[in-house]
Amino acid sequence: MSTSSFTMPFAGNDLNACEHERDPKELQAFLNDPKAKAMLLDRGRPALLPEGGLKWVKPNDLIGQNIADPGPLFLGKQGDVPVFAFSISTENALTEIESFQDMRVVAAQLSPMELALAGQAKSLFDWHDEHRFCAKCGAGSRGNRGGTTRQCDSCGAAHFPRVNPVTIMLVINGDDCLLGRGHGWPEGSFSALAGFVSPGETIEEGCAREIFEEVGVTIKSPRYVFSQPWPFPSQLMIGLICETDDRELVIDANEIEDARWFSRDEVEAVFAKRSDAFKRPPRFTIAHQLLRHWLKEG
Amino acid sequence: MSTSSFTMPFAGNDLNACEHERDPKELQAFLNDPKAKAMLLDRGRPALLPEGGLKWVKPNDLIGQNIADPGPLFLGKQGDVPVFAFSISTENALTEIESFQDMRVVAAQLSPMELALAGQAKSLFDWHDEHRFCAKCGAGSRGNRGGTTRQCDSCGAAHFPRVNPVTIMLVINGDDCLLGRGHGWPEGSFSALAGFVSPGETIEEGCAREIFEEVGVTIKSPRYVFSQPWPFPSQLMIGLICETDDRELVIDANEIEDARWFSRDEVEAVFAKRSDAFKRPPRFTIAHQLLRHWLKEG
Ligand SMILES: [Zn+2]
Ligand SMILES: [Zn+2]
Repeated sequence: MSTSSFTMPFAGNDLNACEHERDPKELQAFLNDPKAKAMLLDRGRPALLPEGGLKWVKPNDLIGQNIADPGPLFLGKQGDVPVFAFSISTENALTEIESFQDMRVVAAQLSPMELALAGQAKSLFDWHDEHRFCAKCGAGSRGNRGGTTRQCDSCGAAHFPRVNPVTIMLVINGDDCLLGRGHGWPEGSFSALAGFVSPGETIEEGCAREIFEEVGVTIKSPRYVFSQPWPFPSQLMIGLICETDDRELVIDANEIEDARWFSRDEVEAVFAKRSDAFKRPPRFTIAHQLLRHWLKEG
Repeated sequence: MSTSSFTMPFAGNDLNACEHERDPKELQAFLNDPKAKAMLLDRGRPALLPEGGLKWVKPNDLIGQNIADPGPLFLGKQGDVPVFAFSISTENALTEIESFQDMRVVAAQLSPMELALAGQAKSLFDWHDEHRFCAKCGAGSRGNRGGTTRQCDSCGAAHFPRVNPVTIMLVINGDDCLLGRGHGWPEGSFSALAGFVSPGETIEEGCAREIFEEVGVTIKSPRYVFSQPWPFPSQLMIGLICETDDRELVIDANEIEDARWFSRDEVEAVFAKRSDAFKRPPRFTIAHQLLRHWLKEG
């Protein structure tokens, strides 16, 4: 990693996934462990304590409740504590648990570790939600191995959670940095350009293609900086910084609403809250961290 | 990119994907273009000329043949030449085309560009083969937008090709490098350790977890080197070099068959074909390129 002392938001998860302790008997023992704890999510929104922080419950208190597919999601062990997540729907959930919050809104109310755990759980539940059926044969499938895979009993296929690699990049020209905004973004918001990596391309090729498609700029020397798991729904954000000699932008309105060059001074002023030339990306995004990284390098 | 003058095998594809020219009328015009050309694959194996190199045909010569789902796969335009791929089954294919070859076997008989194009086509066809049904509702889905997406007409979901991020890494201790071998590999073959990135982890965390799971070694300072699209079936191989202070290996026999330290001299001798201390990974793998990179750095 190019950086040293900070934890990328949504990263830093210290669980042991216990890959080889996931048969039904072992999972039941983890559920029964008096040290076990479970977080609750309602459609990807974690339950929070009034004072902030995840609300943890005993997994066994939830058995018998109407737990959604895939059932108890076993995230792994934190030291000797089995950590679970349950997807519940507020309609049929424990009525005393009311405080389900959008993770983007409450990211700052969670510790880095809780954000990482809740993000992982959300990614997995989102994947289950979108993959109730076997893509190979069309039959219903079921969660397996503590919810880290799905099994099709009809054709025998095992399905694994999907992680979509995405490149996200700062394009630099001299002392300026290129930022764009998507359609429908809050007024004044600008962030790094990004796009999915396609089959048949490297990270650097995906980065170059995406920049060329969105703003018509040819990049050189793409340089990997760091990465982030992004649970909306399950991206692997791959952060790069690259250079260009092209100043002129040809914006593809199908892809983005606008893109502009911002000087280092402007970005610095925005990050120091001395300016509102643009709304910076939130702290829990890799775009925010890339901009900080670029400012520090300069 | 940390390297300069070589093309990573399976990369270097110079197509314009023509994202905004993929409605049925536009695709038909590309098919009818007298400059258009199509490669043929039978279950991921491209048709080759007797002298090596892809066999290219006119797309229109294939219409009326029994073309498999998703129909004509439009890869994009190479300059002004529309490039297609067709998945055919030898049972009902043009009988004069007989030379379908395993891509791993014939990689060296293809130019870098043809290898990149055939690899991309294989990844997409493999994805279609495994995703005939909508994972969201179980209905049959169909190829759309020239085969770069699938559409479910039942629930309306659009599905995108899957790319699985995988970390592959050389673990270095002093002047030695750690290589492993999987179960059932050809005798004497060793390569870099590798594993899928899971939801909720960064590239560096995936790398560290995988190494720890497979050989019980704790790594430090993982460093991204380069990446590769790998069409077996559709991985994004993310190549890293990392260091460890741990010499002792605790091999997880569930994951790998063996792992060993090899000195730089041993690896150098194998690459110079002065030694057969182990069978090196083939030239078209990123593992091979990582080892070459490490030798050059040393
Ligand atoms: Zn199935
Ligand atoms: Zn559907």
